[in-house]
Amino acid sequence: MFYGELDKASLVSEQAKLTAQYQAYQAQHLKLDMSRGKPGTDQLELSMEMLNMPLSVSDFVCEGGIDARNYGFLEGIPEARRLMGDILGMPAEQIIVGGTSSLNLMYDFIAKGMTHGFSGELPWSKQGKIRFLCPCPGYDRHFMVTETFGIELVPVPMLSNGPDMDRAEELVKDPSVKGMWCVPKYSNPDGITYSDETVRRIAALRPAAKDFRIMWDNAYAVHDLHEEGDSLLNLYDECVKQGSEDMVAAFCSTSKITFPGGGISAMGLSKANFEYMKNLMGFQTICYDKINQLRHARFFKNMDGIRAHMKKHAALIRPKFDVVCDMLDKELVSRGIGRYHRPNGGYFVSFFTPEGCAERTVQLCREAGVVMTPAGASYPYGKDPSDSNIRIAPTFPSLEELETAMQLFCLCVRLAALENLLKAA
Amino acid sequence: MFYGELDKASLVSEQAKLTAQYQAYQAQHLKLDMSRGKPGTDQLELSMEMLNMPLSVSDFVCEGGIDARNYGFLEGIPEARRLMGDILGMPAEQIIVGGTSSLNLMYDFIAKGMTHGFSGELPWSKQGKIRFLCPCPGYDRHFMVTETFGIELVPVPMLSNGPDMDRAEELVKDPSVKGMWCVPKYSNPDGITYSDETVRRIAALRPAAKDFRIMWDNAYAVHDLHEEGDSLLNLYDECVKQGSEDMVAAFCSTSKITFPGGGISAMGLSKANFEYMKNLMGFQTICYDKINQLRHARFFKNMDGIRAHMKKHAALIRPKFDVVCDMLDKELVSRGIGRYHRPNGGYFVSFFTPEGCAERTVQLCREAGVVMTPAGASYPYGKDPSDSNIRIAPTFPSLEELETAMQLFCLCVRLAALENLLKAA
Repeated sequence: MFYGELDKASLVSEQAKLTAQYQAYQAQHLKLDMSRGKPGTDQLELSMEMLNMPLSVSDFVCEGGIDARNYGFLEGIPEARRLMGDILGMPAEQIIVGGTSSLNLMYDFIAKGMTHGFSGELPWSKQGKIRFLCPCPGYDRHFMVTETFGIELVPVPMLSNGPDMDRAEELVKDPSVKGMWCVPKYSNPDGITYSDETVRRIAALRPAAKDFRIMWDNAYAVHDLHEEGDSLLNLYDECVKQGSEDMVAAFCSTSKITFPGGGISAMGLSKANFEYMKNLMGFQTICYDKINQLRHARFFKNMDGIRAHMKKHAALIRPKFDVVCDMLDKELVSRGIGRYHRPNGGYFVSFFTPEGCAERTVQLCREAGVVMTPAGASYPYGKDPSDSNIRIAPTFPSLEELETAMQLFCLCVRLAALENLLKAA
Repeated sequence: MFYGELDKASLVSEQAKLTAQYQAYQAQHLKLDMSRGKPGTDQLELSMEMLNMPLSVSDFVCEGGIDARNYGFLEGIPEARRLMGDILGMPAEQIIVGGTSSLNLMYDFIAKGMTHGFSGELPWSKQGKIRFLCPCPGYDRHFMVTETFGIELVPVPMLSNGPDMDRAEELVKDPSVKGMWCVPKYSNPDGITYSDETVRRIAALRPAAKDFRIMWDNAYAVHDLHEEGDSLLNLYDECVKQGSEDMVAAFCSTSKITFPGGGISAMGLSKANFEYMKNLMGFQTICYDKINQLRHARFFKNMDGIRAHMKKHAALIRPKFDVVCDMLDKELVSRGIGRYHRPNGGYFVSFFTPEGCAERTVQLCREAGVVMTPAGASYPYGKDPSDSNIRIAPTFPSLEELETAMQLFCLCVRLAALENLLKAA
């Protein structure tokens, strides 16, 4: 049954049938949350061993003789810098290991752009109106970081191979454009990995603003769902070839590897930017939590340790992604209602309803007890011009809860689509 | 032998004798550091038990059912907010528990003054030249936080009962004066505790600037050396009486209670400022490390736990403070060379050499292998107008090392004093 081909009578009878089903869900008084990319409790169990530290004093001596329990070493301990550098694909000497949150490092980076500026240019707060490129749909918290500083958000469409680079290349000719947000692997929310060509075109950007910065949030660098993950070209290496490495600030964290809000984060910079930022950050703090850095370095040892650990995560969440995608295929795509990209990793599935149905779908879900990310959240200022995109976060609910929530979700999309078709009919 | 009463011949022979002693120290190739307030390794041992977390899942459920291992609760877990609120003497509901560094919270607070502003006024960065009151000698890192944002540092003399409030009351009539740094208990570096009258006068300040803020860094709130510690009036309570509570931002951390750089920090604010800051901080991070908060809350339980723990610290560092103070008395004060306040707690002894001798003393120490905090560091822009103050940090070296370092220090002060007396003779 292809919704686009139904006549009015069929639409009306379909609506009556689905409304009855919807009312049955409402009677269940569900309370489910698919709004944020939060690991499930079973995933948190995978890292518990890390929390048990030996009590022997010598165990807190890091490489270079650093005592993890005392002040010093803003940039982090060598073993943690190496581990996070390997995740980012950058030299350990250019890594600053931060606290529990890479969002915090990104916010601080933008804040320092505002108050201190980059590449010898005036602080952004002294340059009048400035702008940031926001590939969208994208990560709402990125957009809000720039918004809270009064930076204007400029949407750039996400294509199937990454941001629309024709548009980006055009926009960076404006010297008021100071940067671009990127989640290059398993993008939030689409789950798209930037193609090699996209990465090369980003490295080759020649922005009019000398203080332009690529915010390269490699949040899902190791978050593959399958044995064979998407492969992402190393932006930093490409930039070095182009002599544009001062343009990149790369970020990652272990929030979705060990513990959200209890992990470690990292920022990778060019040599020049590393020295500049380390100096500025020296006014901000003496050091981050080196004990937690040591926990992580000892627990994983190296990238092999990370990869083996991520396979355990994949085993837990792959069935959840399958439930979401299989149900979207069967219930919606097969009826010609909406579209999505089946991701090979990351934390989200991004569904595009027919135009004008997203807000209504989220409302219907909410009124039956299922909380989705607000419609439009993945767009600058929370405004999706097509009112079409909804971000689905499958990881936190149990498999059983997820099945129920997805059944309801699909029902709500169909109801919203029917309402629109009937209006037009 | 009172140096001021010696004739030229006696000064010369004294100098010859001390120079020989100094050269003997140089031959020892010492390598000692008394530059920063860093706990000794023996102090770090006191909290080791805290690092061993049980592996049972239910142990990570905090009050209110919060899972310490997952996202959420920017303001911290209830048990940690209560504990830190008790240290600050403020209601738990007005506490934000931060990461490992209270300096970081203070920096972020000032940064938000610059980019977002307070009390509905323009952001500080849009108000032209602004100023901050810096009681001095004071904490160099405080002064540098304001300096890095281009805020002008205005010195206010420290008296024996706190900052010179006559001067402060005069200065806050200028609307460009936006705040004052305070370490109210066992002040860094003097070890002075503000008198009740000083605290009341601070609460009663009526600054011309509506967005004036008292940065109340209660870093040594529980850091008594003796059974009976200094008592500090509760500024927040006094401000509530005066209706001036929006003026206060209070800070503390466990850096010198558990692990420097591995502890937890806290910020206490008025109800209005709490809501304002929590909202702004929501763009910066999702949450701080709740696992570490839980470790601390479980380890200490309450203020009795903190107090018992701090007695163990006192037992370890009191002998070190005694060595420093006894030697200053015997070697210097008895000879009429300089003065200091014998502190009842905190992390420093602040010694005032005769005018014009501090820099030379630090240089002599350094050239014999003992690193002191740079002379002048306790003053805005690192400039001590009298070139007199030197901050001594006794905690990190062993007792034996400290004795050697202090013998050398006293010798260097005497040599520097002799050089000046001979120049004048």
